[in-house]
Amino acid sequence: MNTAPELLSEHACFGGVQRFYQHTARSIGLPMKYSVFLPPQIVIDDAGGKVPALIYLAGLTCNEETFMTKAGAQRLAATLGLALIAPDTSPRGANVPGESDGWDMGLGAGFYLDAVQAPWSKNYRMETYITSELLPLLSATLPLHAGRTGIFGHSMGGHGALTLALRHPTLFKSVSAFAPICAPSQCPWGRKAFGGYLGADESAWAAHDATALMARLDTAPYPGGILIDQGLADKFLEEQLQPHLFEAACAQAGQPLTLRRHAGYDHGYYFIATFMADHLKHHARQLAA
Amino acid sequence: MNTAPELLSEHACFGGVQRFYQHTARSIGLPMKYSVFLPPQIVIDDAGGKVPALIYLAGLTCNEETFMTKAGAQRLAATLGLALIAPDTSPRGANVPGESDGWDMGLGAGFYLDAVQAPWSKNYRMETYITSELLPLLSATLPLHAGRTGIFGHSMGGHGALTLALRHPTLFKSVSAFAPICAPSQCPWGRKAFGGYLGADESAWAAHDATALMARLDTAPYPGGILIDQGLADKFLEEQLQPHLFEAACAQAGQPLTLRRHAGYDHGYYFIATFMADHLKHHARQLAA
Repeated sequence: MNTAPELLSEHACFGGVQRFYQHTARSIGLPMKYSVFLPPQIVIDDAGGKVPALIYLAGLTCNEETFMTKAGAQRLAATLGLALIAPDTSPRGANVPGESDGWDMGLGAGFYLDAVQAPWSKNYRMETYITSELLPLLSATLPLHAGRTGIFGHSMGGHGALTLALRHPTLFKSVSAFAPICAPSQCPWGRKAFGGYLGADESAWAAHDATALMARLDTAPYPGGILIDQGLADKFLEEQLQPHLFEAACAQAGQPLTLRRHAGYDHGYYFIATFMADHLKHHARQLAA
Repeated sequence: MNTAPELLSEHACFGGVQRFYQHTARSIGLPMKYSVFLPPQIVIDDAGGKVPALIYLAGLTCNEETFMTKAGAQRLAATLGLALIAPDTSPRGANVPGESDGWDMGLGAGFYLDAVQAPWSKNYRMETYITSELLPLLSATLPLHAGRTGIFGHSMGGHGALTLALRHPTLFKSVSAFAPICAPSQCPWGRKAFGGYLGADESAWAAHDATALMARLDTAPYPGGILIDQGLADKFLEEQLQPHLFEAACAQAGQPLTLRRHAGYDHGYYFIATFMADHLKHHARQLAA
């Protein structure tokens, strides 16, 4: 039996409400935090309808608060009538040896997959947590349209959004990303994390690599299109992010992709905030359909 | 001779640029950091015109980064053609005994005045720093309209905005505040800080108290009006902020004041972000006149 999530704090925000929750996550075996923005459409009319939800997955070193404080998304989400949800980026308190040794694996770096290698495999199960525990919990406890959920994210969270959308196309109706890690099997961040979480056998990695997942499709899983924004002054672009590989895989699969390359923009939240409105509109359009 | 400010970092943001600087502040005797958002109007046409500037003073425990990451102001400032400037909230590195003992005095809590009591008086000189050093430095190094500067702030920074505007009406053309400390001589935060920085003689405090400053005027220093937003779920409202006292002083002085009380909103940046657009428009209108 699930225990009810605990409301840690609540803040009025753009006519809606910004909340922070904690709950006991069975799939992780530890308490997990998540944040929720509910638009005024729900708060005002709490006897009434439901709204679509948009899940945001944050990047390395971030947590459930980063998006809500830095991305400036609530203003337009309030107008569009979108709920925003942000989980944490890893389990906290697993005490896996070495989990805090680097910022690119372990704490704050769960990579949105289920680890199969000990000792990570006991708690580092972010994919099952998000898709099989958090989403049902949200539907059960908040007035969200269960069938109208989109997903997006940044960097490691962009990888998470793309791979979870490709692995669970019935759960998500829309997907987009900011500066995602597009081919983790082929970059240092991804190879380190996949080696640790999934093991040395690289044949298991393709199932969690957006480019590899897309490359094996022959019909578009998201015919409404995928949106990716990428800054050209992003210092991680060439070595870690490699959007051209995902672009080629989409072209091959017939998946419509809008990949926008922005001169001057870097990897941070000033970049994300700048293009946030376009992502919210992208999702609102597809979630309304 | 001033040394040129050092550009610590720069980020493309809404077509403009977000910068963080450090410089040697003569008036403080220590290095000080400040942040600048320049709208696209400058960045695109850097041979061309100048833009108005809006100074933001942050609250207790904050620094020069808080406003730029959390308030969501750059989007509309980019459209309105406003530069945004945020100084730090106190000297850093003065090593005054006890300066880090509390979050309401000392580090992060300079109260935007010049201390006259030793040992604070050597470095804690935020009023002279902002009005006589930072503003001239900004005018000399950035394409800003020297005569078109507005000021606003939050909590302790709202106190700073109101008092600096009232003490230097020729420097600032417009003023507004979010949840300001309106009568510091009459609240615990203000009495602690004023006692430490200005001394036990309370007759010296009135010159740094927005309500007392306004009460002794018989013509409106800001005939275009002052805007204040205050959340009614703000836990500091009654004991520390006391906007009704400033409201009464404005009525007596004939100073137009729009004081908006918002049910449900608290003291944090979700509140500030919600009403940011109205403040930017308030300043843009008065700075264009």
